[in-house]
Amino acid sequence: MAHETYPTSKVNQVKRYNHQATYDVEFIHGTVNSTPVVHVSFVPDFKEPFPVVLPMIGEIARFPDDEQHHCYLHGYVSSRLMRLADEALNRGEEGLPLCIAATIVDGLVLTLTPNSHNYNYRSAVIHGYGTIVDNDKEKLWAMEVITNSVVPDRWANSRIPPDAAEMQSTRILKVKIAAASGKVREGVPNDEKKDLKREDVLNKVWTGVIPVYETLGEPQPGPYNRVKEPPEHVEEYIAHTNEVNERYSYDAAHKPAPEKRKKYGESDDGE
Amino acid sequence: MAHETYPTSKVNQVKRYNHQATYDVEFIHGTVNSTPVVHVSFVPDFKEPFPVVLPMIGEIARFPDDEQHHCYLHGYVSSRLMRLADEALNRGEEGLPLCIAATIVDGLVLTLTPNSHNYNYRSAVIHGYGTIVDNDKEKLWAMEVITNSVVPDRWANSRIPPDAAEMQSTRILKVKIAAASGKVREGVPNDEKKDLKREDVLNKVWTGVIPVYETLGEPQPGPYNRVKEPPEHVEEYIAHTNEVNERYSYDAAHKPAPEKRKKYGESDDGE
Repeated sequence: MAHETYPTSKVNQVKRYNHQATYDVEFIHGTVNSTPVVHVSFVPDFKEPFPVVLPMIGEIARFPDDEQHHCYLHGYVSSRLMRLADEALNRGEEGLPLCIAATIVDGLVLTLTPNSHNYNYRSAVIHGYGTIVDNDKEKLWAMEVITNSVVPDRWANSRIPPDAAEMQSTRILKVKIAAASGKVREGVPNDEKKDLKREDVLNKVWTGVIPVYETLGEPQPGPYNRVKEPPEHVEEYIAHTNEVNERYSYDAAHKPAPEKRKKYGESDDGE
Repeated sequence: MAHETYPTSKVNQVKRYNHQATYDVEFIHGTVNSTPVVHVSFVPDFKEPFPVVLPMIGEIARFPDDEQHHCYLHGYVSSRLMRLADEALNRGEEGLPLCIAATIVDGLVLTLTPNSHNYNYRSAVIHGYGTIVDNDKEKLWAMEVITNSVVPDRWANSRIPPDAAEMQSTRILKVKIAAASGKVREGVPNDEKKDLKREDVLNKVWTGVIPVYETLGEPQPGPYNRVKEPPEHVEEYIAHTNEVNERYSYDAAHKPAPEKRKKYGESDDGE
């Protein structure tokens, strides 16, 4: 089956270790949608040289009226961020240029020598243009998508619909995806030949992978909760998530190492 | 005991929900040093409008020759990033302006209504000036700090010291911290009064916190490992990390909610 891929350009091309780079749409969307938090960067307008990075909730989905998938972002959308997005539109741009990064660490890869240590990980980076969703139909749809990205079916199992004041106060950023790329490292440790020849090192240094995975714990009822048992949509999500996360990290720990690095000393971490 | 704090400025001032903002040095350093990955943003020089975000390993530590703590970053330091840092120095700046963000999700806070849903989390954002470490003494020290940030004592338990080629190929970014801030949300759900008055909603919607914590799994020996049992420094780190992470997320789930939000509809997520 041919996978859909994002086009490559100067902005998103991963220059090294192409065996680890991917432009696969399913991988990129899956990575963004599997992380509870994405990191969103933009260049502010005040006279400070620093870009801004904000942790936000991000979910890639397609609004039924659109042909393309977009990345919907929820979090504290400051008046500054709103103004920057408006100003970009007024300048005739497609929105505020944003960079969105999502990273999942799947394992600590312990090798013979510090320089070969690595993580098993999945990451995705998206460049796109952000605008504030002002259409109430799309905003309501996006609020449901984002709520259900935290716990599936949570929307229908809470007090809905939002009232007028809640609709008014909610701000959602819609990002038109201009470029996207992903990277993945999975597999067993991968040391340099020079160390694999050393009996003294091989006999002394433990090598392997420590799986890393996010765990959801037992639901802790709050002080005004009256519902005796955690509902099915919560229990099922916890069980499913824990099984998927744990299995992925253990599976990744046993896959073949990525192709050997071409040049001595280069790290597996690409940009 | 008076805690050391970072000064506030226009760059790092958290404008809303000051009860959740912190400039406490211990909190900020602890958050950065507890996350396996930080997200580092900079503004590239090519004629694209997007900032760049890279996942990297970050550790805040004080080199014995320095008076201040710095943030040391390891990952793929591209030739572009090196050039940008050099150019900034040549322009008389202190280094390349960077923004570093670290976020830990500690729980999913499920409330009566979608708008009050939240995360328990800890986050830190640092603005600073990055330069490449070119002093071999400091580079070697930073390599040890970074390796031991992945697994304590790993450096001494692997093949050291790095040889000349490894020293040559390793690039570490040292970030002079110009401003820093942190944010934290912990505690039980916190709904609006209007929903807490509704018997129908209270009787139907489960409210509480799902603890979230990163778990380290059982060490998986690699294909050329000869050391029978995972060493003490690995086993102890796994046991300790799992205990600390799990306990924090459960404790956070039972703390009082942050002070009530002043204005209707505002989210707990600050910028």
